[in-house]
Amino acid sequence: MAISNTQTPSAPANRDALLSELAAALDAAGLQTGDDIETRFRKDWYAPLDPEPPIAVARPRNTAEVSAVLAICHRHRQAVVPQGGLTGLAGAATPAGGELVLSLERMRGVEEIDDQAGTMTVMAGTTLQAAQEAARAAHWLLPVDLGARGSCQIGGNIATNAGGNRVIRYGMMRDQVLGLEAVLADGTVLTSLNKMLKNNAGYDLRQLFIGSEGTLGVITRAVLKLAPLPASTQTALCALSRYEDVVQLLRHAQRKLAGRLSAFEVMWADFYELVTTRVSGVRAPLPAGHPFYVLLDLQGDDAGQDGPVFESMLETAMEAGLIQDAAVATSDKEAQRFWQLRDAVAEFPVMWAPNAAFDVSLPIGRIGEFAQALRAAVLDRWSEAELVNFGHVGDSNLHVSVYLPNVALPDFPEHEISEVVYRVVQEFGGSISAEHGIGTHKKPFLGCSRTPEELAVMRLLKRTLDPHHILCPGRVVDLE
Amino acid sequence: MAISNTQTPSAPANRDALLSELAAALDAAGLQTGDDIETRFRKDWYAPLDPEPPIAVARPRNTAEVSAVLAICHRHRQAVVPQGGLTGLAGAATPAGGELVLSLERMRGVEEIDDQAGTMTVMAGTTLQAAQEAARAAHWLLPVDLGARGSCQIGGNIATNAGGNRVIRYGMMRDQVLGLEAVLADGTVLTSLNKMLKNNAGYDLRQLFIGSEGTLGVITRAVLKLAPLPASTQTALCALSRYEDVVQLLRHAQRKLAGRLSAFEVMWADFYELVTTRVSGVRAPLPAGHPFYVLLDLQGDDAGQDGPVFESMLETAMEAGLIQDAAVATSDKEAQRFWQLRDAVAEFPVMWAPNAAFDVSLPIGRIGEFAQALRAAVLDRWSEAELVNFGHVGDSNLHVSVYLPNVALPDFPEHEISEVVYRVVQEFGGSISAEHGIGTHKKPFLGCSRTPEELAVMRLLKRTLDPHHILCPGRVVDLE
Repeated sequence: MAISNTQTPSAPANRDALLSELAAALDAAGLQTGDDIETRFRKDWYAPLDPEPPIAVARPRNTAEVSAVLAICHRHRQAVVPQGGLTGLAGAATPAGGELVLSLERMRGVEEIDDQAGTMTVMAGTTLQAAQEAARAAHWLLPVDLGARGSCQIGGNIATNAGGNRVIRYGMMRDQVLGLEAVLADGTVLTSLNKMLKNNAGYDLRQLFIGSEGTLGVITRAVLKLAPLPASTQTALCALSRYEDVVQLLRHAQRKLAGRLSAFEVMWADFYELVTTRVSGVRAPLPAGHPFYVLLDLQGDDAGQDGPVFESMLETAMEAGLIQDAAVATSDKEAQRFWQLRDAVAEFPVMWAPNAAFDVSLPIGRIGEFAQALRAAVLDRWSEAELVNFGHVGDSNLHVSVYLPNVALPDFPEHEISEVVYRVVQEFGGSISAEHGIGTHKKPFLGCSRTPEELAVMRLLKRTLDPHHILCPGRVVDLE
Repeated sequence: MAISNTQTPSAPANRDALLSELAAALDAAGLQTGDDIETRFRKDWYAPLDPEPPIAVARPRNTAEVSAVLAICHRHRQAVVPQGGLTGLAGAATPAGGELVLSLERMRGVEEIDDQAGTMTVMAGTTLQAAQEAARAAHWLLPVDLGARGSCQIGGNIATNAGGNRVIRYGMMRDQVLGLEAVLADGTVLTSLNKMLKNNAGYDLRQLFIGSEGTLGVITRAVLKLAPLPASTQTALCALSRYEDVVQLLRHAQRKLAGRLSAFEVMWADFYELVTTRVSGVRAPLPAGHPFYVLLDLQGDDAGQDGPVFESMLETAMEAGLIQDAAVATSDKEAQRFWQLRDAVAEFPVMWAPNAAFDVSLPIGRIGEFAQALRAAVLDRWSEAELVNFGHVGDSNLHVSVYLPNVALPDFPEHEISEVVYRVVQEFGGSISAEHGIGTHKKPFLGCSRTPEELAVMRLLKRTLDPHHILCPGRVVDLE
């Protein structure tokens, strides 16, 4: 699918003037134009390459340079696409031909860890992993974690409100952001590097930039909340026979582990069979054939106290008939083996290509029924289709992958599969994006999860904060 | 201080037409006018009564009626002040003469508790206590809690982003709101009764209405996240000699109690002495004379497991020299006695009147130094002043009360005291409102905590969402 981008502002009247103003505002390494533009800036993880190159790549070193670049582009009506680590799955950071790439990659580094406040002040271009490691070195936990940690950047994590495996305990990226610095489309710098957990002094402007995928402003710095570093982890894999039992186990574990349940990942039988038989190096800790598998973690301070609590929770669940079988990891290495099951999704794009991958959310009680309805709807249309279901069910988040054997990429009907999936999502009152965002990829389906009145207010906000529509035009929400 | 409200839209050209349209849109009990207006609608907890009455009080029964009232007022340019339980401390809900009161009090009730999703759907006029009790009856916890629970309403709790004593574990009201229904100034209804913990489908419009004190829309319904109901509570009161030790104890308790620290309240010596000697019925569990007292709770699932963890945490803190003395509550009744110390603040307005009460937040590490600087600044101006400091220090929130002996109300220099306090807050990079909001009371000082660029964006949002400026004019932020 090509980027449908009818809303790009028309090319600036004076391209040479634009480029020379940008060159004057940046250092020599700060601007790439023409044949000097590196290919890596031309697409993110999801989106197909636009055959037309961007007009330039700006690589500012600090907030003042970001502000200068945006002020120039605002004046010239030049479309701008901010870029973090380019690991997004919805296409928001892939430049259409003629757009300006604004890469934050040179703005990296942890400016401060305030050990008393329990906060980290970090530049937007810092990778998630670098920020996690800096926190850990200071005996703190930066809890948001996801597979792309080595490449994705804090600014992108905030702009897309990233989720991951620890949301059930710590919340999403939105919940980690105490303070934010962002630059508006016209170059205005909004600096609010707040370190307080409570601050009700006027409107909470941070929220405009968290999860809006770069369409309302460019994030340059943030103050993140840190959590105490857990000293012990208990991990188990359980087999269950009914989705109702999955939900009951979730509530049982939340009660019994009292604040320490740190992951609750569910794999349907289809997923478990696929990864244990087809992904090399993945072993099955429990026999296949159970309808559901739950991978869950307790993170606490003391294995001597936590181990018995964890095992008692599993025993009472087994006595109540919620769990059919269970394996408790007896070492960190074994826990990592359990997690390999879940992390095997990273192999899907290679071993099961092409497939259509979905990131939806639904009320927790309805996910089991939804998965059945979705399978029926997909098979009704493509009888040869294969589906797998897995996800952060404790956070109401389901991932679904749909594969059509013997269909090669050019003929793969991704849009048609999306239509079927999102129709069922809409019937169940769900969201078409739990954690990946909308970008260009899911924009045609936004109306499945939001009302016309909500879409109208989104457009109103976009027009208000970016009147010339230069920031990420054509992403998230259309103006008409 | 009278309400400075120069921005009220001019009186509608046709008052009779306005009132007859409102009467047609509401039932007989839905509209009070003239002498029928009950006095209770004319002021909230904080603000002084306006000598001029409101033009009317509208009491809609449902969202459609709220929408009709707002559409009529929008057309007539009639100022509207939404009201919850009128327990606000910043004056936002007190109507100026000629404004229309929009009371949500008839829209009460819990519509649904979804036991599988772990959510409650509730109408805005439901009292916090009624919602808490409904959650508890279904074996869930609605964790936000504050002294006004019996009167304050869920809609007001959301509109002011209420805090309270459990923020350290569960977050503020903002963190409980999964779904929201709000009505815009022109009557447009935005309904997003989302039950999912993750939803990145477009802009997060909930955030516009949470904490904006009714100036951007009227909240009519919400979906709240519920937490597992704890089965056991451990409570201790500790005496400490230095503020640095208070911060260290906070971090020590967070680590050792791993997700179960549920309150961390700090009382300075001045506060402890005042409440143990002057408030009837309050006994001192520890001797006076220590510089700091910390009241802390663990909430968990099993007293048999939690008790030893709690005591071990206190013992290691004592061995490390962080704690000078400690008392652990041995019964629920004793725990309640400990909490009476903290709850004695409810007596201040009576026993220590008039006093100026502040609700500020600061980076946690700087609160000790701030309290000293503030005392010096106040005594420098009023050498006879008495101050007490206490607060939710684990959430970076400090409450300060300033009392001037022998000064009667008409002469009490509240505005001048505020100037001194907020100047010191600004010097320390703090916020003039941690949890009470801005309303009319703190509006003159908003610039102490927010930059001119931030204030400009607040005004821009206000103008965009309420172009005729009918919602709570003159509250939170001025348009010029």
